[in-house]
Amino acid sequence: MEALVRPKLQEAYEAVKRALECVHFCILIANCEVKYWGRASSKLGRGQRVIMLKQDGSVLVHRPYGYEPVNWQPPGSRLSAELKDGKLVVRAVRLRPWEELVVEVYEVHLLAHCKLRDDARFEMYGSEGDIRDLLANNPELIEKGLKRVEVERKVEGGSIDILFIDERGRLVVVEVKRGTAGAEAVIQLKKYVERLKGELGRDVRGILVAEDLARGVRGLLVREGLEFKKIDLRKLFEVSKEQGASLTHWLTRC
Amino acid sequence: MEALVRPKLQEAYEAVKRALECVHFCILIANCEVKYWGRASSKLGRGQRVIMLKQDGSVLVHRPYGYEPVNWQPPGSRLSAELKDGKLVVRAVRLRPWEELVVEVYEVHLLAHCKLRDDARFEMYGSEGDIRDLLANNPELIEKGLKRVEVERKVEGGSIDILFIDERGRLVVVEVKRGTAGAEAVIQLKKYVERLKGELGRDVRGILVAEDLARGVRGLLVREGLEFKKIDLRKLFEVSKEQGASLTHWLTRC
Repeated sequence: MEALVRPKLQEAYEAVKRALECVHFCILIANCEVKYWGRASSKLGRGQRVIMLKQDGSVLVHRPYGYEPVNWQPPGSRLSAELKDGKLVVRAVRLRPWEELVVEVYEVHLLAHCKLRDDARFEMYGSEGDIRDLLANNPELIEKGLKRVEVERKVEGGSIDILFIDERGRLVVVEVKRGTAGAEAVIQLKKYVERLKGELGRDVRGILVAEDLARGVRGLLVREGLEFKKIDLRKLFEVSKEQGASLTHWLTRC
Repeated sequence: MEALVRPKLQEAYEAVKRALECVHFCILIANCEVKYWGRASSKLGRGQRVIMLKQDGSVLVHRPYGYEPVNWQPPGSRLSAELKDGKLVVRAVRLRPWEELVVEVYEVHLLAHCKLRDDARFEMYGSEGDIRDLLANNPELIEKGLKRVEVERKVEGGSIDILFIDERGRLVVVEVKRGTAGAEAVIQLKKYVERLKGELGRDVRGILVAEDLARGVRGLLVREGLEFKKIDLRKLFEVSKEQGASLTHWLTRC
């Protein structure tokens, strides 16, 4: 770990160059301006912020408030640094689609870089009931245009996790499974779809929603005329957290 | 700025306490475990990460790769620190909805805290054409269930920015304005809606999409039977960036 408190810009520049050469994680607390060009462009005037240059080429600029970065570039960006017009200029360029993030540093309060190791698995726990409720409230995560009819609708032999109507007016039975869904889940879903068809005499779709499908189960699913939708629990719970967290979340949730 | 390189846990604990008391921005590079309880729960085993405690109570935990935090808490969380079982335990609790993020620190590589000042305005630039194209490709940002019919459809006296069909099969004329929309935008939209009604003899909706409405214009809009949808350019361009940035983005975009 190399850590510099209030280095001169020349020293900071040399340290950033070393960090990039060694593919180190590098962090700066600095007075800077930030410019971005891509599909749109943006400009952020001078202020004190944290700049993270990660080992995979992703870049984040964080203001002293808020949980979202004010600017960011995804992994795989090409990072470079130069001294120019009395500023330390850190640049992150992505080629496809082309976009460029430029941080112009006027003053460095702290700079540190080192190789960070983190191989830990991220494990997410949530009950099937939690997942079902989240999907019932966010049907667009399964398919656009779904409208909820009922949660836990009783049918002969059990209950349907969620019943929706799709954009074309067809009923959709959704069976939710935590983790990897096996053949039993397909058979159960098929049973509910058939019951509902018999009850209502109309076309009914069945979607199995799970983190993954067990080997060989896709064939069975397709033969039975059912569908599969893979869910990413992490993303699902992030959606739920974002919905509660902020008034400035995605427009679709306004 | 207080900066400690490889402090003992006791020193780190005292520094974090000082940072929280002074409502400082505090950053740690540390070997830690992370646990979260809320709607779901998660666990992340030991690894080297960056932990940011912001001045507004938001918390971010970043791994050495990826542009998304592995864990985060929104502004307004209650932050605390304690020494427990030979670990520095940093806790961020949000009350409504209740959720708790706990970072158990085994070893601190770097700790720094200071008051950061950042009052700069974030300015976003993008042409009306860019906004129109993004909305044409992401109609759910205007309204759920919209289907695109045509971009820049020529009509007498000009062209309609985007023409959609809504969930109930009605045509929807969307007029996009960069910045604050004034009375002219309403009049223009009304004209297109009327032309289309005359051409097709069916019901046509009109939605004005802009960052804001000028004072007094809402009344005119409502009298003309038109609708307004506020857009946040920042979020709009983030959506566009995310769509290009990652294969692990929201399920809705898979």
